[in-house]
Formats: sequence, structure tokens, C-alpha cells
Amino acid sequence: MSVGRRDKTEDEFRKDAEQAIKRFSRSNNGSQTRLNQVLSRFYYYRLDIYNKDGYAQLGDYLSEIDKVYGTNGNRIFYLAVAPEHFKPIVENLRSAGMVINDGTSWQRVVIEKPFGSDLNSAIMLNEVINRVFGEEHIYRIDHYLGKEMLQNIMAIRFANALFEPLWNNKYIDHVQIISSETVGVENRGAYYEKAGALRDMLQNHMLQLLMLTAMEPPAILDNNSIRDEKVKVLKSLSGMTYEKVRQHVVRGQYGSGQIDNKTVPGYREENKVSPSSDTETFVAMKVEVENFRWGGVPFYLLTGKRLPAKFTEIVIQFVSLPEVLYFKELRGLKPNTLHIRIQPMEGVELYFNTKKPGIRNEIIQVGMDFCQNCDADAVSPDAYERLLLDVMKGDSTLFTRWDEVEYAWRFVDSISRAWAEEKPVFPNYPAGTWGPYGARKLIEKDGRQWHVV
Amino acid sequence: MSVGRRDKTEDEFRKDAEQAIKRFSRSNNGSQTRLNQVLSRFYYYRLDIYNKDGYAQLGDYLSEIDKVYGTNGNRIFYLAVAPEHFKPIVENLRSAGMVINDGTSWQRVVIEKPFGSDLNSAIMLNEVINRVFGEEHIYRIDHYLGKEMLQNIMAIRFANALFEPLWNNKYIDHVQIISSETVGVENRGAYYEKAGALRDMLQNHMLQLLMLTAMEPPAILDNNSIRDEKVKVLKSLSGMTYEKVRQHVVRGQYGSGQIDNKTVPGYREENKVSPSSDTETFVAMKVEVENFRWGGVPFYLLTGKRLPAKFTEIVIQFVSLPEVLYFKELRGLKPNTLHIRIQPMEGVELYFNTKKPGIRNEIIQVGMDFCQNCDADAVSPDAYERLLLDVMKGDSTLFTRWDEVEYAWRFVDSISRAWAEEKPVFPNYPAGTWGPYGARKLIEKDGRQWHVV
Repeated sequence: MSVGRRDKTEDEFRKDAEQAIKRFSRSNNGSQTRLNQVLSRFYYYRLDIYNKDGYAQLGDYLSEIDKVYGTNGNRIFYLAVAPEHFKPIVENLRSAGMVINDGTSWQRVVIEKPFGSDLNSAIMLNEVINRVFGEEHIYRIDHYLGKEMLQNIMAIRFANALFEPLWNNKYIDHVQIISSETVGVENRGAYYEKAGALRDMLQNHMLQLLMLTAMEPPAILDNNSIRDEKVKVLKSLSGMTYEKVRQHVVRGQYGSGQIDNKTVPGYREENKVSPSSDTETFVAMKVEVENFRWGGVPFYLLTGKRLPAKFTEIVIQFVSLPEVLYFKELRGLKPNTLHIRIQPMEGVELYFNTKKPGIRNEIIQVGMDFCQNCDADAVSPDAYERLLLDVMKGDSTLFTRWDEVEYAWRFVDSISRAWAEEKPVFPNYPAGTWGPYGARKLIEKDGRQWHVV
Repeated sequence: MSVGRRDKTEDEFRKDAEQAIKRFSRSNNGSQTRLNQVLSRFYYYRLDIYNKDGYAQLGDYLSEIDKVYGTNGNRIFYLAVAPEHFKPIVENLRSAGMVINDGTSWQRVVIEKPFGSDLNSAIMLNEVINRVFGEEHIYRIDHYLGKEMLQNIMAIRFANALFEPLWNNKYIDHVQIISSETVGVENRGAYYEKAGALRDMLQNHMLQLLMLTAMEPPAILDNNSIRDEKVKVLKSLSGMTYEKVRQHVVRGQYGSGQIDNKTVPGYREENKVSPSSDTETFVAMKVEVENFRWGGVPFYLLTGKRLPAKFTEIVIQFVSLPEVLYFKELRGLKPNTLHIRIQPMEGVELYFNTKKPGIRNEIIQVGMDFCQNCDADAVSPDAYERLLLDVMKGDSTLFTRWDEVEYAWRFVDSISRAWAEEKPVFPNYPAGTWGPYGARKLIEKDGRQWHVV
């Protein structure tokens, strides 16, 4: 059942759905008969979400459909709307008696990110939704968490005797989490102006990658045990004072530049963007997870738009061995690195040192990799496929729990507060480069380098 | 300069050499002019090695050649003869005044394996050669040690922070060293009857692989420091009492069987082999290196002829993680393994666990590998190329030092002494199988499996 403000008939809606399925579906071997069966289960209802009376009628329609399919009033409300509509919708659902959750049937709500725009707005929003649904029925969706390789981080860490013992400050020198995009703000200028890279990418995606990389092993593999450990990582993040933000956080905004030999406009020239915008399109930072496992191991985060390449990757750089043997005789040997590739390539790559074939005793770095999605047959399910199935099953492991949201905002707010004190000099990097000079300096002053080509 | 008993002229000898070069050389782009230059440096001298007078004349000829090339009397005597000729040759060389080693020029001797046939014969042989040349001028050659991947074992172990911390009994469950051949005894029956798999393969190749895998890091990367550490491994091998040999060592001899769908004869039917031969063509054993690093970690060794595949490989099997998380929820997860492939493939392969792509939370084992000789351009130098160059340079790192030979024989003799007490029931495995049943039982009674397909 799709609910929208547009005036269209159920038939028109099913035609739209049919076209979309034919265009995007990966399997082309389904029959038209089967497709028609699926389409017959699509319904459309026109509703002005601010019209309270309409909800009762919607409820009646849903009850009818319940009878056809025997779904017993179990419902998932998926709110694919702008955040400001969350509150009125859930309140109207409640007023219309459509949220019961009394044990005879369940009603779940799925909410797309961003969940609020800072801690305060998130708290207010959460109170409203929580009052209506209760935390256990709220599914804060971030499609990133449905990605195969994100789910794989835990498997790689906790199902391998080869990695588990090395996953701490004794053997890891530092971690890099990089999520770079080549696109600019495209047609999302109005939204992006208020969000920026900090709220759009760092508050959710980047911190999720950080949590999965740094978390302690959960007591058991259930949703709350896992999320307990993830939240602990956020709680252990070193507080971001103004001084620390100045030293460890770099923001940027792209100016005009070259991507793939084409000149592209700067952020301030983009559609629905202020010509004097101070919104950041790039952020790089160094954070520390202050616990016994990670004390002394910096995590370097980098994300931005209009960068030279598109990929998301976690790089674990292992410590350098002491300057003995090969490290004494042959200068400049590279440390071992493990690359967990999230997208577009999904897989694991390991760089290590080996003897260079030949008469002389030289050591070279070589890589070996396991690519999960290189094989044409091995199609990873789409992140949303996985997540929607999980909502139906009531498995919230891959959704964001409230305290994750809360601590993520605490961290991000400490940065935006510091930024508000100082007007940035934007633009400070040309499109098609790896961000402002400060981002390079951030890591190079520690004697390290970004793992970007 | 080639010395032989055959009557041929230098021209004939150069023609033979030319044909051999054209047949075996990997580079086909050399000009005939260049080849002729090389061939002009080939000399032939006919000598009955038991004719003392011939040596003086050989010496005169070499002195002449010295003048042409300015080689100053520096000489390498490469003895590619049956072991029983070693003694008379070196003694005749000395009598003819051809071994000086007084600081003005050097004379080195290269001796092919086997060096003796047991500890006593090796000691006697060594005394003779040592008296003439001195240990530092003796190069006991085993072409195995010149192989790229053998040299690479040390680089992999000591140049990688990823492997170095895991290389001990805390993280390694056991090690397998497998060197399997598909060929039978071919035309070497007369030699093999006296040697058997124990002397032909285990005493040298297999123990070398064991030493390189198990050795402590040397103090520095020079030849004696490395060989000091290798010898310590042999000294730490648990002594082989009769009882231990009965429990931990399995010998075999192939009967007739199928290789590649062709019927091949049994060992006792081979040319120059006794029809009631008790020589072993297969040996498998479990040994322990009794030191702090390896205490409790068994090393399983397996080598034989007429097995189903031809390869040499070291498998490091890491410990199983405790039965928690994935190991509790999903039974039967496989332990991580690192495969160091010596030949014919040269490279490293790592098997680890990862999430199986898909909706369900399943874990599968996947492999990633680095293949050193898969790339057509990356030609590893032939083992002999490397080793001969090392003799010229006076670098004995990749040659066997006397105490290595000594302790290898001590170990091997303890096994042959126990074997001599009991007549084996041969043949006990058909050609084309993985050896006698006892070899499987040897490892399976410990709850483990051979890593052979």
C-alpha cells in the first residue's frame, strides 16, 4: 500500500510499479503472469498527511486488505518523507487508532535518516515517535547498514583467528575510514545546505563504520548485545573541545574544478545553494577511541564530494616491526595493511611483504585480495532488500538504536558548535582533488599518509 | 672448464653446450655472436679422476686460462659425481697443489647431496673434505635452498607485522609440510634402493622446510646467524625412540596402481630395484620442536612418490577460536590457514572466514592468494642460477653447514635404526593414492586432517 498526495488511480500506480520493476529488477526471467500476481498486491491511497480525517478512511481500507491476506492488522509504516513530516504523521496515526501494539498485532515504523538535525531536534522527534510506537517498534533505517560488507566486518573480525588477536593497539598502528564521492550536490542543494558532510555522511555512515571496526566482541550475536557494544565505541570517543576541533578536524567546500576532464561548477554555484554558503562538502578528522583496546591508535576519517574517486573503504594499518633484520638492511619497507572494501568493490585486500623474485635480496610489497562481488554470479542482495525483510521479521540488529543516534549527535554537535565560532574560508579545494591542504597536513603531521591513490 | 672421463674435443663439447643452451635457455633473443662469445669460455679436459698425474696437467691448463681471464687462481670445484668419488678427487686435488686458500687466491668446493648416507659416513667424508678445503670453502649444495619460495619463507615471517606475532604455539595449531611427487623411481633405481624417501627427501628438503618455518629470528641476516638458528631447530627436535618411531612415523612403498588413468608398475617391478625391496618410497611423520615457541604444536611431514599430485607446500593452520559468537551459532567453521606454496606454484594463499553474501547470516571460508610465478613476465631465477652466483660471491647462506648435515643425520639415523628392527609389509599403497592408511591415521588420531585434495 502506497500513500501519497498525488491523485492517481490504483491502476495508474500499478503501471508505474510495473515499469519500475521491469527497469530495475535484476532477474529478467519472471513471467508476466507472475508479475501481474505481484502487481495485484500493490495498492494506492491518496492522502493529505495533514488531514486527520483521512487516516480513519485509510485505516478502513487497510482492514479490508488485511482480510484478503490474513495479515491480522500487522503493519509497517515506512515514512519516506521529509523529517518535518514525521511528527504530524505518527500523531495522526495514533489519533486514528492505527497504532495498537497490544500483543494481538504489531505496528512498526521505519524512519529514513537523518533522524533530527542535532541532538535537541533528535530528542524531540524521538519523544514523539517513541510515545506512539515505543523504541522496540521503531526502525531507524540507514541503508548503509544493510550493505554486505558492513555486515561482514563483524564476521571478518570475530570468525578469524588470524585477525582477532591482532585487532588492538599492540598490533594496529592506525585506522583510516574513507568514503569519497565524485558527484557534487546534484539536485539535493536545498537539503544539503542544512546538512553538510558532517550530518549527511559523518553522523551516520562514517560513525557506523567506526563502530563496527572498533567495537568489542558482543556477548552474544543478538541485536541488543551488538548495539550495546557499538554504542560503547561512541561513548569512548574522545570529547571534541573547540581546541581539539581546531587541531583534529578539517572542513572543506569544493570550488570549480575538473572531474574526468570536464569542468564542474563549485558548490556555491550549484542549484538551490547560497552563493555565500558556508556548508561543508568535505570533512576529515582524527578521533581516538579511549579504551584499553584502542588507546593510542588514531582513527582518521575522511569523506567528501567531488573527490577524484568513488569508494568506501576501511584501512587497517598494522604497526611497523622494529628496525631489525629486513627493516634494518632494507630501508623503506612498507607496513602491512588490511583493506576492507565496502563499495563499489566489496571485499578484502591484504598487503604484505615478500621477497622480490630474483638474484638480489629485495623485499617488495604485494597484495592479495578476495573480491566478493567480482564474480558475475555472486550478486549481493541490495541493502534495502535485506533491511525490509528484517523489519518484517522484527530483527532490528541492522537498524540504529536510539542511544546510537543520541551519542552520534553528541559527538557531531561538539564539532558544529566549534565550527560556528569561526567563519570558514570557502571554497578551499578544487573539485577533483583530495580535499583541502589541511586534510593532508592532519595526517602527515603524525608521520602518516592517506591511503588514497 | 668441464672435466670428464669421456674422450671428446673442446669443439665437440662446445657444440653439446650450444645445443643445451638453445634448448633450455629462457631468453631466445640473444644473438649467435653473443652465444659464440659465451661458448668460447667453455673448456673441456679429459681426466680419469683416479689418475693422480692427470691433476697436475689439469692444473697447468687452468693456470693458462687464468692468464686469459685474470682470474688469479680463484677456483670453484663443482663435484657432480657419485658420493664415493668425493674423497679421491679432493685428495688428488690437494696432492697436485691445487688447493691453496692462503689468502692470495681461493678455492671452493661444491658438493651435491646426498652428503653421506648416515651420520658415520657423513663424518668420514666431511673430515676428508674439511682437511683439504676447510669448512668455509665447502658449499654443500641442495638446489631446494635456491628456490625463490624457500628464500621467501624468512621474508614472509620476519618482514610482516601480520604474521610475526602469530608465529607461535599460542596462535598456530599445527604445521603440515608436504612434498608429493607423481613420478616413480624412474631410471634412478640403483641410487634410490640405497636412499629411500627418508634419505632422498626427508633428510634434506623436508628438514630444510621445517627449519625455515620453525627457526627463531636470526640476530642479523648473515649466513652464520641464519644457519645458527636453523641448526637450533634440529637440536630441538624431540628424539626419535623406537617407541616414538612406531607411533609417529609411517613408511610406505607403492605397488602397482593408476596415475592419470594409466596403470603404472609397483616399486618392486621398477628397473634396478630388487623384487623384494624393503626401500620406502613414502614417509609421513609427526615431529615436535621442543622449545618455548613451538611446544605443543605438531609438525606433520609427508613425502612420497607415485602420489596423486605433484606439489610442495607448507600449511600453517591457525588455532580454532573459542566456541563463542559465530563459532557457537554456526557449527563447523573452518580454522584459518596460510599456505606457502614452494612448487610448482610459487606463492602464498590465505584462507579465512567471511559472511556468505545473501540474506542469511552464514559464514563461508574463502581464499585469497598471491602467486609469484603466475605472471608470465615474472620469471623466478632457476635455483642453480642463484646458488652458483652465491658460490662465486662466497655467500654460503643458502648452503648446508656441517652441523645442519650432522643433526639431520642424527635425526634420520634414529628413524632408520628403529626401522631396521622390523620388516615392513610392502607394498602398502597403490600408486596414485595418498600413501598407506597409517599416514591418514597418524594425523586423524589427533583430530586433524592432511591438507591434500
